[in-house]
Amino acid sequence: MKKKSRFLQTPIEPFAVEAGLTADQVLTRMERISFQGRNLATAHRIWQKMLQDDVTIFLGMAGALSAGGLRLVVAHLIAHRYVDCLVSTGANLYHDLHETRGQSHYLGSPTADDAALAEERIDRVYDTYASEEEFCSNDAWIAKFATTLETRPYTTREFLYLLGGHLWKTTGRDGILTAAYRANVPIFCPAIADSSIGMGLSQARHRDATAGHIDVIGDIVESANIVIRHPRTASVVLGGGTPKNFINQASVQAEFFDDRVGGHRYALQIVTDVPHFGGASGSSLEEARSWGKLATDAEQVTVHADATIALPLLVSALAASAQDTLAARKPLAFDPSGPAMAVNGRPFPPARFEAR
Amino acid sequence: MKKKSRFLQTPIEPFAVEAGLTADQVLTRMERISFQGRNLATAHRIWQKMLQDDVTIFLGMAGALSAGGLRLVVAHLIAHRYVDCLVSTGANLYHDLHETRGQSHYLGSPTADDAALAEERIDRVYDTYASEEEFCSNDAWIAKFATTLETRPYTTREFLYLLGGHLWKTTGRDGILTAAYRANVPIFCPAIADSSIGMGLSQARHRDATAGHIDVIGDIVESANIVIRHPRTASVVLGGGTPKNFINQASVQAEFFDDRVGGHRYALQIVTDVPHFGGASGSSLEEARSWGKLATDAEQVTVHADATIALPLLVSALAASAQDTLAARKPLAFDPSGPAMAVNGRPFPPARFEAR
Amino acid sequence: MKKKSRFLQTPIEPFAVEAGLTADQVLTRMERISFQGRNLATAHRIWQKMLQDDVTIFLGMAGALSAGGLRLVVAHLIAHRYVDCLVSTGANLYHDLHETRGQSHYLGSPTADDAALAEERIDRVYDTYASEEEFCSNDAWIAKFATTLETRPYTTREFLYLLGGHLWKTTGRDGILTAAYRANVPIFCPAIADSSIGMGLSQARHRDATAGHIDVIGDIVESANIVIRHPRTASVVLGGGTPKNFINQASVQAEFFDDRVGGHRYALQIVTDVPHFGGASGSSLEEARSWGKLATDAEQVTVHADATIALPLLVSALAASAQDTLAARKPLAFDPSGPAMAVNGRPFPPARFEAR
Amino acid sequence: MKKKSRFLQTPIEPFAVEAGLTADQVLTRMERISFQGRNLATAHRIWQKMLQDDVTIFLGMAGALSAGGLRLVVAHLIAHRYVDCLVSTGANLYHDLHETRGQSHYLGSPTADDAALAEERIDRVYDTYASEEEFCSNDAWIAKFATTLETRPYTTREFLYLLGGHLWKTTGRDGILTAAYRANVPIFCPAIADSSIGMGLSQARHRDATAGHIDVIGDIVESANIVIRHPRTASVVLGGGTPKNFINQASVQAEFFDDRVGGHRYALQIVTDVPHFGGASGSSLEEARSWGKLATDAEQVTVHADATIALPLLVSALAASAQDTLAARKPLAFDPSGPAMAVNGRPFPPARFEAR
Repeated sequence: MKKKSRFLQTPIEPFAVEAGLTADQVLTRMERISFQGRNLATAHRIWQKMLQDDVTIFLGMAGALSAGGLRLVVAHLIAHRYVDCLVSTGANLYHDLHETRGQSHYLGSPTADDAALAEERIDRVYDTYASEEEFCSNDAWIAKFATTLETRPYTTREFLYLLGGHLWKTTGRDGILTAAYRANVPIFCPAIADSSIGMGLSQARHRDATAGHIDVIGDIVESANIVIRHPRTASVVLGGGTPKNFINQASVQAEFFDDRVGGHRYALQIVTDVPHFGGASGSSLEEARSWGKLATDAEQVTVHADATIALPLLVSALAASAQDTLAARKPLAFDPSGPAMAVNGRPFPPARFEAR
Repeated sequence: MKKKSRFLQTPIEPFAVEAGLTADQVLTRMERISFQGRNLATAHRIWQKMLQDDVTIFLGMAGALSAGGLRLVVAHLIAHRYVDCLVSTGANLYHDLHETRGQSHYLGSPTADDAALAEERIDRVYDTYASEEEFCSNDAWIAKFATTLETRPYTTREFLYLLGGHLWKTTGRDGILTAAYRANVPIFCPAIADSSIGMGLSQARHRDATAGHIDVIGDIVESANIVIRHPRTASVVLGGGTPKNFINQASVQAEFFDDRVGGHRYALQIVTDVPHFGGASGSSLEEARSWGKLATDAEQVTVHADATIALPLLVSALAASAQDTLAARKPLAFDPSGPAMAVNGRPFPPARFEAR
Repeated sequence: MKKKSRFLQTPIEPFAVEAGLTADQVLTRMERISFQGRNLATAHRIWQKMLQDDVTIFLGMAGALSAGGLRLVVAHLIAHRYVDCLVSTGANLYHDLHETRGQSHYLGSPTADDAALAEERIDRVYDTYASEEEFCSNDAWIAKFATTLETRPYTTREFLYLLGGHLWKTTGRDGILTAAYRANVPIFCPAIADSSIGMGLSQARHRDATAGHIDVIGDIVESANIVIRHPRTASVVLGGGTPKNFINQASVQAEFFDDRVGGHRYALQIVTDVPHFGGASGSSLEEARSWGKLATDAEQVTVHADATIALPLLVSALAASAQDTLAARKPLAFDPSGPAMAVNGRPFPPARFEAR
Repeated sequence: MKKKSRFLQTPIEPFAVEAGLTADQVLTRMERISFQGRNLATAHRIWQKMLQDDVTIFLGMAGALSAGGLRLVVAHLIAHRYVDCLVSTGANLYHDLHETRGQSHYLGSPTADDAALAEERIDRVYDTYASEEEFCSNDAWIAKFATTLETRPYTTREFLYLLGGHLWKTTGRDGILTAAYRANVPIFCPAIADSSIGMGLSQARHRDATAGHIDVIGDIVESANIVIRHPRTASVVLGGGTPKNFINQASVQAEFFDDRVGGHRYALQIVTDVPHFGGASGSSLEEARSWGKLATDAEQVTVHADATIALPLLVSALAASAQDTLAARKPLAFDPSGPAMAVNGRPFPPARFEAR
């Protein structure tokens, strides 16, 4: 009998339906199918590996995931240290704050009459609504909080830690900001000026010319220092955007000062954008290798799917499959409470990249 | 206190992660999130309703789902009568036959060296491989079978029933064609000429000028007659393509002869195409209403997702949540074995739309 | 000075705006930009090369291009032999016939009230409307024509030639079907059963059980024979679908009988689908190489764009840049008028692949 | 004769091919076709109207347009005041600076061997390459420039004006930054921290703890003040991202302080993202109405296309069709040279939204 081609080694195993399968069983049965289903199963496997390895895991979050019902999934990832550092758009943190303050987003329709919504001051995010009035109250709440701070620049990391603390003390409710505060997980928000948190800060400035100073360049230094301190990292990206690039930039910037860095050891991204229009959100993890954002031998996978489908399934599966690994995991201990962050008790040098 | 806007009725309920959730529990928790996650949960609910209602359910199937590891999901849907009639591309039936004949598709890479693959005669479907040699043996097998048939035109429905029967008798293995044969579920393949089954038939013709006559126009008549016989229908579409339109066409054509028809009562589609380029695959179910393909009050949902993610989760959930409904369901009894199909014991008029 | 990397050879040349640029000047200035702009400029260059080379050029056409205002672009391509053989969906030919018969499609809105449209029997294709009543009159017109044919199976190629002839004689108007009739350019429609032309044929069958017999398997044989007769081909694909695969299938099927074939020498596709969901419409031209659909050294390009933007620009440019080439071109002379097509005066063997 | 439906008013006019058509003639012939082709023609018409009306036109720019060969198109738009204010990602400004400094991006391949590229320190952006070494020299150049500034926070608007001036004085070359400097067109870069310009600034900080202070919250105040000063605006968005939202935020924030604002009067966006995943980049202009980002009666259009195809055609057309309008246009005169920007000679209040 003729020898099989070297290309024909592992047969596709068709997915076998069964009543009562759990999320992790569903993903396990998807490991040998094709296309994005296989990729999602691979993401499950790679995330498990990350958690077993000695790496600092960055989570990037773009798209309206908080408004869209995934904020407690992200809070769960933070609280149980599936991830060690969050990079987010401002909107996701703002919508999280909105709900943690006891307000809601609402089921809506993508074919709504937007003139009627505008009339009633309802803001629409595809199939989801929110009250503009409540949004304005958030802005004022943020502005008021910002005017209580010292008159010096704050990195977004420090500001968001303090904001999370204030939110936790006022509400005692779970959410992304409060979970990060309680778990000492740093949050960076590089595009904070492009969000309603930024609008709140600008209203603080309006009231007090010395308020609302945010040091986004300090964030660059500090995010790179996290990588330099422990030059083994992994990247989990939901939806592209500024978080995706900022996480990669931290790695590239760190390598500039420390040649042990060498890019992320693992990378997974769940995106709906495609590579062929050249934008960063859709850029492939292969391309990331050319930049040194990713180690040449890194395990990586891109899942082309809406996070509102992929993430609930993936994290429900991990909650079961990674339970023991999470219990045994010893991630870096961050102290994000002051002007200079500390890692495992040792603070970063202020305003400098940490020399090796 | 001010009254809430009429638009702000049902709050988003953030997905709550928990270890050990089953597929249907995951989908239930996705009902009040947003975007495609909510849509997939809605698809679950609509399919349950279809099964409880007295409707004939068409399943359309395009995209490389059989090669991609979903053929046993579709076979399960047929065997347990989650659906009553399949409309498929030729490729999906061919790749099903390929595996039912004991051969495999294989895990591959989307960044493979295609010249090297061509050298070894490996055919690639994105991240999945198959042996061209084995494909040629299928073609010959189909050609040989076709030459055993009578020298008259066969609708694809009749031909595929006979092919499924031959396959079942030769292999005794599960698959789409064999499940449909055993469950008397008719299969239509309107674009059979654009597939390797068509190539097999053309090779039969090459051997015998009287062989390989397929009557695709007869399929139009018969598919409409299924609707006329019981003018309450539903449509489940995976991936658009010719199956999507053929199912709608059956309804539109039926209405031309019987004004009780009025379009599908339920419709769900899992597609990756978008409406704004004007193609039928991505066309919205709203648009379908203008054509009368869909009843004006039909419950419908479009899920923008790769079926290799959405379908395993959705059908795993249904296998649990619809178990009792399926047991109690009394669908039409088809006899697809002869030149004219019979429904509940009464054959269709040959070569005619059934007058009311 | 350090030597430049071998990867850094040809600089991007930013597009320079100027008033009065013609279409071909615009495309020429896009040759050294990036992403899909560069790809469209490459498509322009590759199509010019095809026309200079001794190849038979297949054009595949899917998506609602005729309803969407591109039917006279396609008619122009046929009349002036930018292409030699058309493979189309049924809808594109039907919508062409609709306008050639003196009726119109209309500007509409993608956010229309579809219930109101249904009420007035207006069919919507995204942002374009048509009258259902006029569509029904087309169906009847086709049915009536079909009942005038002999009671034998017709390939779609023969049927569409006769339909185009009848249309030309009745209307004297330009369009795809009439241009193809007049230029003796064969048209194949592998999924004719999935279209309103198919519906018209099924109504002919309803009136007369012996009418409306279409031999789609004969089309497979004949399309492969076109390749065998002159085994140097090129493929231009608009929008994927059945035409894309049917053109490739002709090449693959031909190679089975004649090893000179070796796949298309040139290929260009303008598609909006993506490869990573595994469907044929979005499949890459790299992947096509593994199947032998494309010669290993073929020049090829995929343009990810809506054809309603790309095609008017591309063909307007070619109309200027390829004028002399078109005048000098000596394509195969087809006679598509009879049961067996003839090429350069020599008919194909009936019901057989042409042996070498 | 029966009356036509009110829905069937304006027939589709098929595009008529002709040799020698200019860009604006091509777009004019696309006005009555369908889908994205029609939308691009509508964008042409809407931009012409904007230029004739008394509105301040914001241009948003995301995606790798500068690296991809469109920087001189954008520079042209700025120099000739097709637009009045630019909001950009950092990368687009950085890649512009890269070329203005006399360096290049290069034609590359999307299927390159990224390990080999990494080896030679070539960075890939889909099908385009750049030298990492040259990038590092830019970073150092920016860092050095930043250390020459006063030790106070700079808005991105002020910083980028000074950077453009320095670039113009050093190179005398055309580009986005230099054109904006010369035309006194303000540039905002809300996510500057997520870019190589930010990396350059962080290296300035590393050298000098008092350097590299950017006041992104000041940008929010100032961008809103531009709207308040002249509350009639228009928005042209390329590719979504932070620029899209920042432009809308300026309008929303301005309205909070001045009820004359009422959203943009005109809006056009060229995007490849879709609305149904809920992200801001793909969000529809209909949805923008619910937020008051867009006036309820605004003329608006979304073109779903890669900007590398759509923009060269669109701006080439405008260069001819809008020539007279541009000559007659009297836009606001900005002075972006100091800590507080001035409009028509009158400076904004420092650190405050301008009260009505």
